[in-house]
Amino acid sequence: MEVARTIAEIRASIAQARAAGRRIGLVPTMGALHVGHTSLIDAATARCDFVVVSIFVNPTQFCPGEDLEKYPRPFERDVALCEQHGVAVVFAPTPEEMYPRDNVTWVTVEKLTEPLCGRSRPGHFRGVTTVCTKLFNIVLPDVAFFGQKDAQQALVIRRMVADLNQPLETVVCPTVREPDGLAVSSRNRYLSEQERRAAPVIFRSLQKCREMIEAGERNADEIRGAMIGVLREVSALKVEYVSLADAESLEESVQLQGQILAAVAAHLGPARLIDNILIDVPDQ
Amino acid sequence: MEVARTIAEIRASIAQARAAGRRIGLVPTMGALHVGHTSLIDAATARCDFVVVSIFVNPTQFCPGEDLEKYPRPFERDVALCEQHGVAVVFAPTPEEMYPRDNVTWVTVEKLTEPLCGRSRPGHFRGVTTVCTKLFNIVLPDVAFFGQKDAQQALVIRRMVADLNQPLETVVCPTVREPDGLAVSSRNRYLSEQERRAAPVIFRSLQKCREMIEAGERNADEIRGAMIGVLREVSALKVEYVSLADAESLEESVQLQGQILAAVAAHLGPARLIDNILIDVPDQ
Repeated sequence: MEVARTIAEIRASIAQARAAGRRIGLVPTMGALHVGHTSLIDAATARCDFVVVSIFVNPTQFCPGEDLEKYPRPFERDVALCEQHGVAVVFAPTPEEMYPRDNVTWVTVEKLTEPLCGRSRPGHFRGVTTVCTKLFNIVLPDVAFFGQKDAQQALVIRRMVADLNQPLETVVCPTVREPDGLAVSSRNRYLSEQERRAAPVIFRSLQKCREMIEAGERNADEIRGAMIGVLREVSALKVEYVSLADAESLEESVQLQGQILAAVAAHLGPARLIDNILIDVPDQ
Repeated sequence: MEVARTIAEIRASIAQARAAGRRIGLVPTMGALHVGHTSLIDAATARCDFVVVSIFVNPTQFCPGEDLEKYPRPFERDVALCEQHGVAVVFAPTPEEMYPRDNVTWVTVEKLTEPLCGRSRPGHFRGVTTVCTKLFNIVLPDVAFFGQKDAQQALVIRRMVADLNQPLETVVCPTVREPDGLAVSSRNRYLSEQERRAAPVIFRSLQKCREMIEAGERNADEIRGAMIGVLREVSALKVEYVSLADAESLEESVQLQGQILAAVAAHLGPARLIDNILIDVPDQ
């Protein structure tokens, strides 16, 4: 397995792979790889014969006051994991390689970036869409892989790819969970032992939502109220949002129908945790 | 020569050309082709062996009240000109093909888009950079060709290509002029006979600038004043800006040094005309 540090290096590897007729998959990450990421890598190796994992803690998607500096960077461990999972090249550029000058060019997606995480993280999605566009232009993948855990990010990127005619396919892979239901995330390591034990309450609130819909409830306020009731079981949890939105437009629902994204964001100690499930609301 | 109306058609042609090892050149235009455009096409055929000309009157780069509806669309003539100049494919999509849904994704370049034409045409450059990104993603050219006549546009696109790592080279070709100095433009046809006779005053004001610099003048206010004096010879001309700016940053100069972009925009009857020259200011 190769580790490319510069754009010229990764482009040279990609050109060779393409000349050899390989189908190229890209898994963009910020490193600190866990089973969520390796499930994306495994999906990529199943569909592509030349898999690139980018490891880049992208400064432009962190907001002021966020955890850019302390974001974990266990690089040797990440590289070993990539090798074990059949990755062809790890692309791990420096910030200076990716942003060699004052960056003045941005890719923005309107509307979809405004609700949910967009409200509390101004500029976050602009950073994500800009760096993904750069990575797509550098790697020129046939397929790029994203996780359903970051549901809004996956929707925003799909819309960007469609609107800008970016020449690739996007695949969104299911959220990977710990045995107690907690969605796997690099930020879970910020939790104390006690917080970690309490954290699955977020997934339980999402399960409550699914149960109520299966029992016939269609009123979003009723369900949201019940979810907040579940979340209050953990007094240390500070809820940022509980959303029941149309899964395509992310517009908040009143009477549930079609496909719904149920999503929660909450702060627990030093960690901001997000989770979501997609629910196909049965016709009544 | 092929005329592709859909993205699927042009992508199929490009895939064949690339498989055959062709070097692909793109000349993005809004049609109404003139000798300015054919000089770009000739530059493209000289450097590439598969030249695509896109003809698309891009609605997102017109501001409210501008000439989107009446912009000339002499399509048959344009196609014939492309054929004469050795173009491989004309890509002429409909607005619905390029923007099949409410467009929410934009590529924006900050700073460089603010002065000069950016002041009077809010949203114009955002439309240009967005549609060029789409065309680049559709055609995947090795080289794209732009005219120095639209100096700010050329700078903005070069910066976008660099910042987003778009995998192509950009070539900027010299402005083509009528024998009396008027820069060739699709909008010249809006001029009455009398206006057409008066229009070269814009180029004369730029020549005045060059003469003063060659004579040793370095004070931007002095030169700007003299240029405005020249432009006032045509009382019907309404000057929008007279700029002496750093040719890289487009920041307005006070004492001239390095490379300068001297640029004028003015309204003459129904037409908004722009012109510019690059001047290397000699050290003193």
